[in-house]
Amino acid sequence: MASFGIYGLGRMGQAIALRLLRNGHRLHVYNRSPGPIDLLVQAGAQGATSLAHLVSQLEAPRCIWLMLPAGEPTDEALVALSELLSPGDVLIDGGNSYWKDAARRAAMLEKRGIAFLDVGTSGGVHGLDRGFCLMVGGPAEAADLVDPIFASLAPAELAPNGKEPHGNRPGFVRTGPCGSGHFVKMVHNGIEYGMMQSIAEGFEFLAAAAAPSRLANEKFELKLDEIAEAWRRSSVISSWLVDLAAEALLNDPQLSAFSGRIEDSGEGRWMLHEAIENRIPAPSLAAALFARFESRTDARFGNQLLSAMRMGFGGHKEPPSPN
Amino acid sequence: MASFGIYGLGRMGQAIALRLLRNGHRLHVYNRSPGPIDLLVQAGAQGATSLAHLVSQLEAPRCIWLMLPAGEPTDEALVALSELLSPGDVLIDGGNSYWKDAARRAAMLEKRGIAFLDVGTSGGVHGLDRGFCLMVGGPAEAADLVDPIFASLAPAELAPNGKEPHGNRPGFVRTGPCGSGHFVKMVHNGIEYGMMQSIAEGFEFLAAAAAPSRLANEKFELKLDEIAEAWRRSSVISSWLVDLAAEALLNDPQLSAFSGRIEDSGEGRWMLHEAIENRIPAPSLAAALFARFESRTDARFGNQLLSAMRMGFGGHKEPPSPN
Amino acid sequence: MASFGIYGLGRMGQAIALRLLRNGHRLHVYNRSPGPIDLLVQAGAQGATSLAHLVSQLEAPRCIWLMLPAGEPTDEALVALSELLSPGDVLIDGGNSYWKDAARRAAMLEKRGIAFLDVGTSGGVHGLDRGFCLMVGGPAEAADLVDPIFASLAPAELAPNGKEPHGNRPGFVRTGPCGSGHFVKMVHNGIEYGMMQSIAEGFEFLAAAAAPSRLANEKFELKLDEIAEAWRRSSVISSWLVDLAAEALLNDPQLSAFSGRIEDSGEGRWMLHEAIENRIPAPSLAAALFARFESRTDARFGNQLLSAMRMGFGGHKEPPSPN
Amino acid sequence: MASFGIYGLGRMGQAIALRLLRNGHRLHVYNRSPGPIDLLVQAGAQGATSLAHLVSQLEAPRCIWLMLPAGEPTDEALVALSELLSPGDVLIDGGNSYWKDAARRAAMLEKRGIAFLDVGTSGGVHGLDRGFCLMVGGPAEAADLVDPIFASLAPAELAPNGKEPHGNRPGFVRTGPCGSGHFVKMVHNGIEYGMMQSIAEGFEFLAAAAAPSRLANEKFELKLDEIAEAWRRSSVISSWLVDLAAEALLNDPQLSAFSGRIEDSGEGRWMLHEAIENRIPAPSLAAALFARFESRTDARFGNQLLSAMRMGFGGHKEPPSPN
Repeated sequence: MASFGIYGLGRMGQAIALRLLRNGHRLHVYNRSPGPIDLLVQAGAQGATSLAHLVSQLEAPRCIWLMLPAGEPTDEALVALSELLSPGDVLIDGGNSYWKDAARRAAMLEKRGIAFLDVGTSGGVHGLDRGFCLMVGGPAEAADLVDPIFASLAPAELAPNGKEPHGNRPGFVRTGPCGSGHFVKMVHNGIEYGMMQSIAEGFEFLAAAAAPSRLANEKFELKLDEIAEAWRRSSVISSWLVDLAAEALLNDPQLSAFSGRIEDSGEGRWMLHEAIENRIPAPSLAAALFARFESRTDARFGNQLLSAMRMGFGGHKEPPSPN
Repeated sequence: MASFGIYGLGRMGQAIALRLLRNGHRLHVYNRSPGPIDLLVQAGAQGATSLAHLVSQLEAPRCIWLMLPAGEPTDEALVALSELLSPGDVLIDGGNSYWKDAARRAAMLEKRGIAFLDVGTSGGVHGLDRGFCLMVGGPAEAADLVDPIFASLAPAELAPNGKEPHGNRPGFVRTGPCGSGHFVKMVHNGIEYGMMQSIAEGFEFLAAAAAPSRLANEKFELKLDEIAEAWRRSSVISSWLVDLAAEALLNDPQLSAFSGRIEDSGEGRWMLHEAIENRIPAPSLAAALFARFESRTDARFGNQLLSAMRMGFGGHKEPPSPN
Repeated sequence: MASFGIYGLGRMGQAIALRLLRNGHRLHVYNRSPGPIDLLVQAGAQGATSLAHLVSQLEAPRCIWLMLPAGEPTDEALVALSELLSPGDVLIDGGNSYWKDAARRAAMLEKRGIAFLDVGTSGGVHGLDRGFCLMVGGPAEAADLVDPIFASLAPAELAPNGKEPHGNRPGFVRTGPCGSGHFVKMVHNGIEYGMMQSIAEGFEFLAAAAAPSRLANEKFELKLDEIAEAWRRSSVISSWLVDLAAEALLNDPQLSAFSGRIEDSGEGRWMLHEAIENRIPAPSLAAALFARFESRTDARFGNQLLSAMRMGFGGHKEPPSPN
Repeated sequence: MASFGIYGLGRMGQAIALRLLRNGHRLHVYNRSPGPIDLLVQAGAQGATSLAHLVSQLEAPRCIWLMLPAGEPTDEALVALSELLSPGDVLIDGGNSYWKDAARRAAMLEKRGIAFLDVGTSGGVHGLDRGFCLMVGGPAEAADLVDPIFASLAPAELAPNGKEPHGNRPGFVRTGPCGSGHFVKMVHNGIEYGMMQSIAEGFEFLAAAAAPSRLANEKFELKLDEIAEAWRRSSVISSWLVDLAAEALLNDPQLSAFSGRIEDSGEGRWMLHEAIENRIPAPSLAAALFARFESRTDARFGNQLLSAMRMGFGGHKEPPSPN
């Protein structure tokens, strides 16, 4: 069996490391800031003081899982490690990298005999307990070498309907050649954007119905937390995202800790770009992305121009502010 | 020729009355508040002190043009006038009524022998000079009776490309039976919503490109007023709405008089309702309507829930406010 | 305990009846066509030959669950039963009725002392095994009377993450007064529309990537059934709808049994109508509905006009058909 | 005054050349296929047999207008001409190039002392008579040199409302540095996409209302050609695109020459890409693009999956084909 290291101990990197330790793996970890290393050492990992140190601790064939921000940080780590590793070793990019970067990275590493796997990793911080859904792109021999790790990271749980999974390991798929793992993860996240937007629209609607000032004819005093809780089980929309919504509403029915300004990461944008290039209508994804853009935009020049045109043709004044 | 009155002297009612006076029509006017009556009397109209007085001033066959808010105000006026008018008279609803109301109103009036025309009227306050685009629904005999009025209200202008109109009077169409005039006007306004939204998105985009903080790679210092002015002539998007945008930007390139909160009137909603009922995709109209709704909504519970779900699965914090 | 009947033995009515029989309830059933009655009688139910017969079989207080098409069939059944039942009895509308119909129906029944519950019922035909998610609107006393039935219909399953439900019975919520049950079900289905559309867009995209002719630069040979299977567990999008997608793809990776013409039922439309009326942007729901409309529309006059405009300004010819 | 040539005599190139000849310019023209050269020679131009011949015919400072397909054809021509021209000459890209290509091209030419102008050109083949709307990016000295040409190409017409243009030459704007001309043209075309989609949706709706089978409650027999004709004048949506729609409907009210498969060119996509990158919601543009994608897609795997999921949870069968 291969000797295993992790570089990058953010929230996701820590969860992966801890799940592997729980499953009895011998693990070497490195991170740029030392805090998370100490935390993992307490949990049983071997800490490294540098990338070179990390590599030196491992026995060939070495497998190192990178869990770093996409783009430059991942590129820099791959270059640095390419100079430290040996032919036969394996590098794994478990982050949210752009799938088109994988081919370039694999080619760079291949020159030194190092194999590259692009592993789309879903499950968030809950993966520590639930396991991670893994989408693995890259050469089969390298994936075989890392397989004991994948086996421990992938979920043990059965399907939500209690049936046995069809065929292989649950929550795990080998997607094909280099790049396909992150490609499939991109699509996964595009679906995630749309599902989240659908849920948000539904609860926006319920909140409006519960607020007499918005849905004027309506006197329902809906309890959003109880409704979300009910929808978690046996409904057609039962899903992990509805689970999370229910838990958030249980903790704070007003969600007063959140302003509603929503970040978007790369995958949703990448998928929409790709849809445009390939003439694939993606109205639901676009709606989800635009809603996030809108959530972060306070002033809109276009809207001011709309008001100006309405004033221009009809003398229409703007409606008063609601407050 | 019929004797002609107008009830309802808001911005549009005044513009219609003034255009008729300019064209030499003898005109009787009434309005609930007296101010606009005085104004029209100075311009040459005969003022009335009540609806009954208005009716008594007219000789049969009487034609009265209503230019009132849609819904109850129009219904109340129709009922009141139905009791004052005589068989052979004509009532014209020139407002933005819901087209499905026309059949009911026509039936109510028909019992008393009064004809009803539903006239979609476009052109805004500029109609005084430009003429009004008229979409006339209702019985032909009644429309013939009112024709001298229509002839004066409709535009004299040729098509923008300088060619003669095909066939009849410019800017004028008899659309068919009762209700069809407001139906066609509803669709006109639906197109208007979409065109305005398209123009607004374009200028939003130009404004972002002109603001270094938004389109970061971009150093263009675009002058939106000059661009809008150029687009008015010979471009594919040349249109009266672009004219209005150019004039607004010329007056105030920052549009600082406008907050960007945009009202919506009934027609856009009615058309979207109808599209839903009849399985006609209308994504552009929906986008335009939703953008207006969005412009008036400061807080969104759905967005807060989106943030809460992201915190739930990934520990993601909300991005900071831009200010 | 109340005596219990079901009227309406379509797919959903049968599943409800069978689940109640499995849980030991004594059950009386009626249906317009006799076939399903025979089937239920074999499973242990008492069959009725008419509505009057059904009512005569029950002891007061009688509870009858209607599982009929929304609109007229439900109205007719409610009127007929209102004349057969007695004060203190309860009628339950478990179908996909329009929530605004509930108040009218409840008032009609209240005159005869009959209570009315509007119960949004989710779970589809799988509810027989999984249980049904129930959203119960109407008076508490009536809901209490029916509670043993609700207890058997609601799911026994825990939340997908294996945790205990917060508080009450899983998959069950009392939503408030009359109409609120179907209102909440309408919103549930609106979310369902959006989630389904998101999943469909994602797999559309994967299918395009797997088809070299669409995503030309791409050589991935993605196995959609394996990907769907993996996403079922521990991914952020794990959900019952992804379960169903995975099962469909496992049975037939080409989905060749389906043409892709998608029906829409009332709830999605009702929610969009409501969103329009209440100025709530619902872009994701609109996208989902329009995609369904589009799926059923072969020819589009608007598209022909687009082509004609392009020919008009640029002499552009239409692209050739792909086949 | 500079000596002037045109390379690229497609529909747009011919219209530009003919307008210049009409305005008394001495003009040299070249095209890869000889047919259009002969046509222009008959109209008074000097024909060239090669790019080198074209250049040799011109006196310094030479100005050559390229009207070629975007991308490689334009790049190849620029490279070839850069080797034939001299310092002080000017190259003009009047095609629909991607605005980000302009900086690279200008830098390549600058090394040889050749100035580059990127000129967004709108107006279509009608520009011959109407004039062209020109959006000029690049250095002022070069634009000054070409100004007599711009003056002849720009429209003579006044604004549609008959007023004098504000300030400068109608239909003409200097947008700023290199790239800005095509950037502004991209936004222009984005607006065009949205406006066309809005008009198409409106007429789709009218066509449905005129077809009893679609809007079942409706008996209107709308004449779309007459309605379009009326909307051309004094309506809020009066525009050149409505003019084109009216003319197309006049020629063939059924538009039977068009299948409704709609091509999209680069600009709409580029603007949507840019909107995504810069977090600018562009729902109307996205709707227009997706409608075009949809118009060209006969089979949709995502829709098949939607049907499969509906079969999965509710046993729902697909609706029959309308034919």
